[in-house]
Amino acid sequence: MTDLDYDAYIPSIPDYPEPGVIFRDITPLFANADVLKAAIDTIAGHFQGQGITKVVGPEARGFLVGAPVAIALGAGFIPARKPGKLPRKTISETYELEYGTDTIEIHADALEPGDKVLLVDDLIATGGTICAAAKLVEKTGASVAGFGCILELEFLNPRETLAKLGDFDVFSLVKSR
Amino acid sequence: MTDLDYDAYIPSIPDYPEPGVIFRDITPLFANADVLKAAIDTIAGHFQGQGITKVVGPEARGFLVGAPVAIALGAGFIPARKPGKLPRKTISETYELEYGTDTIEIHADALEPGDKVLLVDDLIATGGTICAAAKLVEKTGASVAGFGCILELEFLNPRETLAKLGDFDVFSLVKSR
Repeated sequence: MTDLDYDAYIPSIPDYPEPGVIFRDITPLFANADVLKAAIDTIAGHFQGQGITKVVGPEARGFLVGAPVAIALGAGFIPARKPGKLPRKTISETYELEYGTDTIEIHADALEPGDKVLLVDDLIATGGTICAAAKLVEKTGASVAGFGCILELEFLNPRETLAKLGDFDVFSLVKSR
Repeated sequence: MTDLDYDAYIPSIPDYPEPGVIFRDITPLFANADVLKAAIDTIAGHFQGQGITKVVGPEARGFLVGAPVAIALGAGFIPARKPGKLPRKTISETYELEYGTDTIEIHADALEPGDKVLLVDDLIATGGTICAAAKLVEKTGASVAGFGCILELEFLNPRETLAKLGDFDVFSLVKSR
């Protein structure tokens, strides 16, 4: 299924969650068994053989992509969660939104130096969440090997933001111009 | 890895999120690549050959189990989300908590009559969330084939609650007495 038109399974919803915003809905892609499997296999396949030991994905849609990609790569999965959701000692990172800030956390013992980490999410827009996740990984002494997602909103230039963090491999199934 | 002691990867955290509550933390199970793969394969294996077409899992930890189980079964995955997170027309179900209520939603077109649905979550306690998810499935005309999870808090008698919904197959990797 290499010629699969993934874009067709990610409808654009105008004016959601607010007027003027176009929301990309990944739920039809996940609902289709064949397309879902092909999407996960393609993302995992891109990073196969790079020695990834852990996959980190942010709550909540990052869990949908991250857990299956981790299994496909033979890696463990580490959830990056909103504050107050993880029961043991955490490390956290706060990042800027258009209005205000947001914070994500991982357990302080979730990664160790030597871990090679693949960051994943369903979608990358400005890259704020993934930059915060990358900083969390680096705080543990582990290294970021790459970032993989289903949809890249290329017109928001996320790769420029990611490039500031270092030279790691970025892969998206679909680019939206 | 049939003799795997999954329980050892789900530590008990006393007094979280509040005094007197013992929280079971599934993150170490997910962090261990071999244990994660074995857990998902075992849950999916239990339901293999039953003609499951869709897996439904509630936000957020239900995504961690549900997406990989769906892929292992060759099924699609449908997220059951908190209100306001799904962009298209939804159907919703409100259920009682110890104090107050909670609501989950799926897209109105996520399932159709003829779909055989496996419900999944990380953990089942009183069964309130899963009963609500089962009612959502039935509203679409699809049928619930079973429920699978990692941890069943047997002392809260979730199977009594599930039995009221009908005679479907319930499977948990670990039972906590």
